[in-house]
Amino acid sequence: MEKIILGIDPGTTLMGYGVLRVADRKAEMLALGVIDLRKYADHYLKLGRIFERVSGIIDSYLPDELAIEAPFFGKNVQSMLKLGRAQGVAMAAAIHRQVPITEYAPMKIKMAITGNGSASKEQVAYMLQQMLHLKPEEMGRYLDATDALGAAYCHYLQMGRPTTDKKYSSWKDFARKNHIID
Amino acid sequence: MEKIILGIDPGTTLMGYGVLRVADRKAEMLALGVIDLRKYADHYLKLGRIFERVSGIIDSYLPDELAIEAPFFGKNVQSMLKLGRAQGVAMAAAIHRQVPITEYAPMKIKMAITGNGSASKEQVAYMLQQMLHLKPEEMGRYLDATDALGAAYCHYLQMGRPTTDKKYSSWKDFARKNHIID
Repeated sequence: MEKIILGIDPGTTLMGYGVLRVADRKAEMLALGVIDLRKYADHYLKLGRIFERVSGIIDSYLPDELAIEAPFFGKNVQSMLKLGRAQGVAMAAAIHRQVPITEYAPMKIKMAITGNGSASKEQVAYMLQQMLHLKPEEMGRYLDATDALGAAYCHYLQMGRPTTDKKYSSWKDFARKNHIID
Repeated sequence: MEKIILGIDPGTTLMGYGVLRVADRKAEMLALGVIDLRKYADHYLKLGRIFERVSGIIDSYLPDELAIEAPFFGKNVQSMLKLGRAQGVAMAAAIHRQVPITEYAPMKIKMAITGNGSASKEQVAYMLQQMLHLKPEEMGRYLDATDALGAAYCHYLQMGRPTTDKKYSSWKDFARKNHIID
């Protein structure tokens, strides 16, 4: 059974993505990159670009699942509103193409990949390089991209396990299981 | 010159919408309603439903512009993340169909319609009923719907004026003009 997993790390300056192909219990990387949003000054152009590019990546790789890195805590309400919009637009692209979404907290991704919930982004990138047998030149310049690949890899590791914590019956449930006070 | 304006008041329990047709400097209401999201327990189903319904409304009424009520302050970061996602998905539907978006703070809408920035939702509904010559039975049950119609009407009032405050060159600019400390 083959499965394609798209990982996304949404942001409003750089949005990272990574695509994994899983077959015979082995994972290989198909794509890794960032959507650079710094050149768009207009907020809606940024959101539009996220929608187009995520839609384009979905059309190119036809993922079976979307794994999204979703921080639940931000500096302030304004940064969370911006992040929520970027996440919402990326999610809309997946929903529009009937790709199921699973969210993972950054700490959960770090824990799944390095065994340490407070590992650095560099440590996550290093572990992914080892586990996916990637050459240094395949790793790309941006840690946003490897973070996204980390979300996809975390989803791959979770897939085989009968966990209950990756499906949420409601926002309340989601909030509770991610230790959010709603 | 005819113009159709879609107004939206995004939320994660009820999403209000109102459609205005503007011709010869006169505005008339074409539609008013809510997207009821309370029956969907799943967070992604809610977001998917918002995308589908907003897309459907756009396809039905072919608006030239989207006016969105956008509160900038929330109780906490979690409620802002949820609201941001709902806004992002609604915006993605508009962006996908090349409908330009303008945001208005609730206070600005109230001010434009009633002359009082802290008017109640009921007062906004009453003024809209008067200005658009609506019968009581046309007003609908939900103040989320009249709030959305208020956003559309506010946009109509702004249209004729050479204001600089409804276009934003960047999030910073947007935040500054809406008195957000970013």
